[in-house]
Amino acid sequence: MNSENFLLSEKIVSPSYVRQGSQARRGHEQLIRQLLEQGKCPEEGWSESTVELFLNELAVMDSNNFLGNCGVGEREGRVASGLVARRHYRLIHGIGRSGDIAAIQPKAAGSSLLNKLTNSVVLDILKLSGVRSVASCFVVPMATGMSLALCFLTLRHRRPKARYIIWPRIDQKSCFKSMITAGFEPVVVENVLDGDELRTDLEAVERKVEELGAENILCVHSTTSCFAPRVPDSLEELAAMCAKHNIPHVVNNAYGVQSSKCMHLIQQGARVGRIDAFVQSLDKNFMVPVGGAIIAGFDAAFIEEISKMYPGGWALLQCCLVASTSVFVFSHERLHDLQEIYSILAEELKRLASAHGERLLHTPHNPISLAMSLDGLQATSDKAVTQLGSMLFTRQVSGARVIPLGKEQIINGYTFRGFMSHSESYPCPYLNAASAIGITREDVALCIKRLDKSLKALKKEGKAARSPSPLASQNL
Amino acid sequence: MNSENFLLSEKIVSPSYVRQGSQARRGHEQLIRQLLEQGKCPEEGWSESTVELFLNELAVMDSNNFLGNCGVGEREGRVASGLVARRHYRLIHGIGRSGDIAAIQPKAAGSSLLNKLTNSVVLDILKLSGVRSVASCFVVPMATGMSLALCFLTLRHRRPKARYIIWPRIDQKSCFKSMITAGFEPVVVENVLDGDELRTDLEAVERKVEELGAENILCVHSTTSCFAPRVPDSLEELAAMCAKHNIPHVVNNAYGVQSSKCMHLIQQGARVGRIDAFVQSLDKNFMVPVGGAIIAGFDAAFIEEISKMYPGGWALLQCCLVASTSVFVFSHERLHDLQEIYSILAEELKRLASAHGERLLHTPHNPISLAMSLDGLQATSDKAVTQLGSMLFTRQVSGARVIPLGKEQIINGYTFRGFMSHSESYPCPYLNAASAIGITREDVALCIKRLDKSLKALKKEGKAARSPSPLASQNL
Amino acid sequence: MNSENFLLSEKIVSPSYVRQGSQARRGHEQLIRQLLEQGKCPEEGWSESTVELFLNELAVMDSNNFLGNCGVGEREGRVASGLVARRHYRLIHGIGRSGDIAAIQPKAAGSSLLNKLTNSVVLDILKLSGVRSVASCFVVPMATGMSLALCFLTLRHRRPKARYIIWPRIDQKSCFKSMITAGFEPVVVENVLDGDELRTDLEAVERKVEELGAENILCVHSTTSCFAPRVPDSLEELAAMCAKHNIPHVVNNAYGVQSSKCMHLIQQGARVGRIDAFVQSLDKNFMVPVGGAIIAGFDAAFIEEISKMYPGGWALLQCCLVASTSVFVFSHERLHDLQEIYSILAEELKRLASAHGERLLHTPHNPISLAMSLDGLQATSDKAVTQLGSMLFTRQVSGARVIPLGKEQIINGYTFRGFMSHSESYPCPYLNAASAIGITREDVALCIKRLDKSLKALKKEGKAARSPSPLASQNL
Amino acid sequence: MNSENFLLSEKIVSPSYVRQGSQARRGHEQLIRQLLEQGKCPEEGWSESTVELFLNELAVMDSNNFLGNCGVGEREGRVASGLVARRHYRLIHGIGRSGDIAAIQPKAAGSSLLNKLTNSVVLDILKLSGVRSVASCFVVPMATGMSLALCFLTLRHRRPKARYIIWPRIDQKSCFKSMITAGFEPVVVENVLDGDELRTDLEAVERKVEELGAENILCVHSTTSCFAPRVPDSLEELAAMCAKHNIPHVVNNAYGVQSSKCMHLIQQGARVGRIDAFVQSLDKNFMVPVGGAIIAGFDAAFIEEISKMYPGGWALLQCCLVASTSVFVFSHERLHDLQEIYSILAEELKRLASAHGERLLHTPHNPISLAMSLDGLQATSDKAVTQLGSMLFTRQVSGARVIPLGKEQIINGYTFRGFMSHSESYPCPYLNAASAIGITREDVALCIKRLDKSLKALKKEGKAARSPSPLASQNL
Repeated sequence: MNSENFLLSEKIVSPSYVRQGSQARRGHEQLIRQLLEQGKCPEEGWSESTVELFLNELAVMDSNNFLGNCGVGEREGRVASGLVARRHYRLIHGIGRSGDIAAIQPKAAGSSLLNKLTNSVVLDILKLSGVRSVASCFVVPMATGMSLALCFLTLRHRRPKARYIIWPRIDQKSCFKSMITAGFEPVVVENVLDGDELRTDLEAVERKVEELGAENILCVHSTTSCFAPRVPDSLEELAAMCAKHNIPHVVNNAYGVQSSKCMHLIQQGARVGRIDAFVQSLDKNFMVPVGGAIIAGFDAAFIEEISKMYPGGWALLQCCLVASTSVFVFSHERLHDLQEIYSILAEELKRLASAHGERLLHTPHNPISLAMSLDGLQATSDKAVTQLGSMLFTRQVSGARVIPLGKEQIINGYTFRGFMSHSESYPCPYLNAASAIGITREDVALCIKRLDKSLKALKKEGKAARSPSPLASQNL
Repeated sequence: MNSENFLLSEKIVSPSYVRQGSQARRGHEQLIRQLLEQGKCPEEGWSESTVELFLNELAVMDSNNFLGNCGVGEREGRVASGLVARRHYRLIHGIGRSGDIAAIQPKAAGSSLLNKLTNSVVLDILKLSGVRSVASCFVVPMATGMSLALCFLTLRHRRPKARYIIWPRIDQKSCFKSMITAGFEPVVVENVLDGDELRTDLEAVERKVEELGAENILCVHSTTSCFAPRVPDSLEELAAMCAKHNIPHVVNNAYGVQSSKCMHLIQQGARVGRIDAFVQSLDKNFMVPVGGAIIAGFDAAFIEEISKMYPGGWALLQCCLVASTSVFVFSHERLHDLQEIYSILAEELKRLASAHGERLLHTPHNPISLAMSLDGLQATSDKAVTQLGSMLFTRQVSGARVIPLGKEQIINGYTFRGFMSHSESYPCPYLNAASAIGITREDVALCIKRLDKSLKALKKEGKAARSPSPLASQNL
Repeated sequence: MNSENFLLSEKIVSPSYVRQGSQARRGHEQLIRQLLEQGKCPEEGWSESTVELFLNELAVMDSNNFLGNCGVGEREGRVASGLVARRHYRLIHGIGRSGDIAAIQPKAAGSSLLNKLTNSVVLDILKLSGVRSVASCFVVPMATGMSLALCFLTLRHRRPKARYIIWPRIDQKSCFKSMITAGFEPVVVENVLDGDELRTDLEAVERKVEELGAENILCVHSTTSCFAPRVPDSLEELAAMCAKHNIPHVVNNAYGVQSSKCMHLIQQGARVGRIDAFVQSLDKNFMVPVGGAIIAGFDAAFIEEISKMYPGGWALLQCCLVASTSVFVFSHERLHDLQEIYSILAEELKRLASAHGERLLHTPHNPISLAMSLDGLQATSDKAVTQLGSMLFTRQVSGARVIPLGKEQIINGYTFRGFMSHSESYPCPYLNAASAIGITREDVALCIKRLDKSLKALKKEGKAARSPSPLASQNL
Repeated sequence: MNSENFLLSEKIVSPSYVRQGSQARRGHEQLIRQLLEQGKCPEEGWSESTVELFLNELAVMDSNNFLGNCGVGEREGRVASGLVARRHYRLIHGIGRSGDIAAIQPKAAGSSLLNKLTNSVVLDILKLSGVRSVASCFVVPMATGMSLALCFLTLRHRRPKARYIIWPRIDQKSCFKSMITAGFEPVVVENVLDGDELRTDLEAVERKVEELGAENILCVHSTTSCFAPRVPDSLEELAAMCAKHNIPHVVNNAYGVQSSKCMHLIQQGARVGRIDAFVQSLDKNFMVPVGGAIIAGFDAAFIEEISKMYPGGWALLQCCLVASTSVFVFSHERLHDLQEIYSILAEELKRLASAHGERLLHTPHNPISLAMSLDGLQATSDKAVTQLGSMLFTRQVSGARVIPLGKEQIINGYTFRGFMSHSESYPCPYLNAASAIGITREDVALCIKRLDKSLKALKKEGKAARSPSPLASQNL
């Protein structure tokens, strides 16, 4: 409804009512104006109706929705099923131009706008979350692992002779594979045990650098967010070391945007040393069901170089479409409500652990994930620990990982002993739980309740199994 | 509604009516059963209501939709906005497990099923379209270019010393960049002019192989679908050459699935020689607004190797979700209706060309794209050719590319003369139009009409410009 | 996106692309302007995207969607489930004000606008369909029967002493009940047989008027659309008679808007005589799944009187919302495509009838419904006619009614002999099929095919039943 | 997914995962089973996903969605726009059969089931809300006013000579008009002032009965929910009087379902005396954007008689569809959370009133609506009271009605002095606010804040207006 149409409407229903309606429209437009002007995360998250209004407006600007459009190219935003068009707000043209993800697509002004705004709001959120001096970022329509690989492939053009990537061990497959995929040799540096925590072995890293020669090392590949008892890598020290030896430094910040501690580590690392790029999941930090990542850094030119290395352009739209529905409803407030549930979860796990003769591992440097020992459980039966995993699965507790001792895993020819525990020999089996974005108090309460029941059931079984009474075993 | 609930319903409304309703349900279930049993493209495409029913059923199977679920992991299928959940049929958990795209995700049985079925139906469509002996394929949540890069990165592990990729020139950025991104040196082989057609210079390829040494060549990277007057590469001969020299062969089949000729070329290439993988766009062949590709091949083990090389697993769902809405509504019939519009477009363009003193280039080997010379137009004014492009853009004809002579472009340090024309010196400027999947007779009619108007307007302008009358020029 | 926001967008993506997008928006706005200006059925039906855009715009104007609204009244457009709000485009406030359906609702400017426009476009469609001199109409959120009752109740205030309504018989319950509900005594006038057709017995009507006295008659209640072999009432003659005796005349035009013949009858009746109101179904003429009717007439003051008689105001929105999605996509063309399928259906039924020894009843005055005799079928077995009905039901032929002879039905104390056949003694049993709005050639083809199969099966059964062979009967 | 399809799925993804998925499905089916078995309001409201699953299942049972259906009737559930079909879950056939709202529609088993279940759950909610002995109810697709008219029209058949309806005054148009529409003469009984409250003048009612003669009175038409300072009618006493004189009694319970006090009054009235039917808004009690009402009573036969009086049958579906999305998400808990906000609103209004020299009227018998005097405001200026209304409108406070003194209104020939105040001469002007279903604490807080601002602004203006200072008036 433009002003002309509002005027016409005043002839049909009372002018004062129409004017109030038109003013209400201006309310939404004001929010859109702020976004267009500032490109920042709104103070208050948008309502769904504003998001929908905006997406519908953008769709109208794309050529596939022009009322008189005809297409004779190889794609032209056609869809096999109207179902899909509607579900995507008719934003069904691609963005970017062949081979350049950052180029504006002439046929899709609305979608291109959405892309720019999404990148801009995401950059603002990175800043608000703690990396105040981040210079540039872009959403890339690939999983985190493949996005890390893209960073490594870009660095190869700068360091054609380098063959190694130094990597403080973290037991997660895709970040390991990202190095293999890119064609490099990972140099795994085992972590050191410090109390209950597993932290970066800085001396071992330094030794490796000297041993291999800085010029043969593509980069150091460190990690922030991880499962306890591993803690985020010592980014400041690693960054300083990289600066000293002139080695690039890429940080896997998978789901670290939601943690001000992880973000602070990156900010500090960049301040005192060198961080070339940090990569985070779109999915995990913004709760969107779409595979995408954000590649960010402190040198806009290098980030642009990575973006130019991405061979494709049409794949971006869905990421932005979905991301926008999320980041536009984020608010400043939203960014700070995780701490509270983390505390509740820690408190509750601690209470539960002590009730069952276990303990909450002391991992104060991990801001998201917690771990509870399962020593006692293991003592009851060899299989009890893995059984606990199955029981939690059956009882619909999702995300609570059980880590037994001594598992061995071969990935792309590399053998990891004690796999899943980030260590060749962690002292005890344990269970992980995390307070990640979107978790509710109800999730915590239900998880604790079902964990309690499962532990009790297993201990009863364990006692029964060890007891000679034939009767008892019938109770199973 | 299970049978128990149908029985209960019979107490509420007349049993015979309920039974007819239950039988109607069985109709949908029958279609689902066939899909589950055979994993094939349905004879008749599904209706939207069957697709929605099935997606809703699958969603119910995913843990994030369990009525009593609680989650304490780092993701757990949470969403920032309900809007997104609904638009995605609540299929918002990822598929695959960390680092393995093909692994079943325990928390997402429904989504995993969708993934398997999508891959299976896509494989069937590849066969039906002409590559009868294809052994395996998978949907990968990355653009075509990045997917080609993934193939090259996988081959590197097999041929660690190879540095070159032989590439018959095609002027499309992302497939060129895919080689750069993967860290290889593209060896560009110019095409030869044969009548109006630009086709593979087989002798030049052979010369390059000998010059560089087969062992230093990672692979030959050929192309099927392309803009006229270039035609699909001579796949049979290239495949035979690759077999002879023991060089891998990767085919960029971007939007070739829709053409039985392109698919036949691949089938024949594999029969008489060597094709290791062929890669096609999900978006372009199946008309879905999502960035994805299909990597397929004749050796299931090698395709699996590529799939294992992909470092990520969560990004796949959206591809499958969207792809499924498309491939399930495809039918056998659907696969064969392009030929007709191609003929109409060719006919109409020919008529138009002759009316304007131009001609339809004779490119019988290109089954999708057509080209019309713009010699005459260029003669009227230097700028007329590019002006035509703008006019078509303004008149909402999308996809009709105008190719002027002599454009130069530098990509990643390589200079391409005559860029966009696949040739350093094509004899004439021209305009492209394609009959790609989803095009309608209305598209063709409108395009021809507007093209006609634009050409007339430009010629009038041209005459005016060449005329000495000062008055005429004011009419511009 | 207002002009300010478009300007801001030009700083983010290329101005020329944004301008084209903004121009595209103007395309939709132009359509909306025309609607607001003229209030007429669009020449070309709107696309779904324009309809959605407009409804979203209107929703923004309603107070329940104001960004800063707070409500302390008894309703305020709240919803129990977001699901409902979205499905209704957030148009969830009522229209009208307590007790006055036509009053503008200050809190719902958008919805009120929608109401006015819907009424206006519907009026235009009534004119285009043939009632050129209709003066006024309004959508009323009640079924046709209740809407007829409302007309009678309004007339009561003008003719407080009148107790009778004269009603040429049509065997449809709700129009009969509408008279009972309103508290009047229906005077049923049997139809006369004229060839195969059943038409109004004008002399009997005249006799009844004289017998009862014009002042004791509330109105004549006639019918247009009906099942063959009944044909539309002789409206011209009835209207003239009403004018002569000064008796009001209400026409039940249930699904007659789709027939130019029915509409022409009304136009002619009003021209030569008296028609006070004609009532039609929203559902049946505009294919919308909502219970509503349109009350129309030639004297705007009387139509307003009826509208003021409706005690309620909040119930209208859904009718308008749903109606608008339909009437806005109607086009002039749409209004004239029924004739063709009617001819096909007649042709096919005729062929089928003669193949089975039956005949298509000759009912040229019924423009929508057709009837095929079932004499022969009845001869094979007593139950065969009703069995045919069940078979068609089971074979998913819906809407094909089978009319056996001699059914008796009591409604509100009145006994109808030969119920369903509009006559106490129609000469033969028959089957009805109609060519109503929305029917497709596929419907006709499938119906004929299944009807053929069913008739064959029944005849086979019939022969078997009459045959003495014990074997044959086992084949049942 | 039936069991066969689950089994097939187990061959595609891991059986244990599929089994968990199938079990999850059973969770939803269990809820559906309970509904089908008991027909009651669920203990815990359903999630949106269960509602959608169920509606989709029902749609599959309707003939318009049969995969092989063909239709040759006059309606057959066709739609003009797919948009509408989807928005209505493809439930687009009607329910009921021509002329009988309660009859099962053979072509729409799913929709018919929905109708029965909706009526059943609504009945349960009426019981849970306090009318424990209600015997029967049905949803009728008409506004409350028209539904009241239907009750009166039904009673006419029982009391053909009765002309009057006795009606304790309540200033709401549609319930007044319902009597006019049905063709009766309303006998308005003014209320008596009791403290601040306006309550039923029982003696006046008794006098009227005697004056007019019980046999000439169709019924007493009383009201529960209303705006303060009027309070619900004295139902017990009225019901007893009706029983004594053998006069029917119809209660307008417009938005009273949400109040246990209103419901208790009805229950008590029926226990000690006579209540024939009570009518409530679907829209207002269940927060659904659809015009519908619920007619309920203690004698199932009489309620059926009313239902049979409704001439129509196709109009019901939308009511049920929309109602079901609401009533299925209701829970027992939901029914009891209004009291708290009522207390907050009362508290806040009281505080505000005393701060502005006004007072909260003492109306303890009105459980929903509150009133605050505006004596002081009126004293500042004659127009101040109506100005306050405009200010609140402009400041987006909806539902807060301002009642000035001495307004006169003529409705259908009847003159109401002091209209809107339920009294010819209420002692003071006042403002209404209500705590109705769906209201939030934010609504209350915002309303109080804006009301405070408006009152301050008006008083400042008032002072300025009365002040002689020329300067002050410039501040306006």
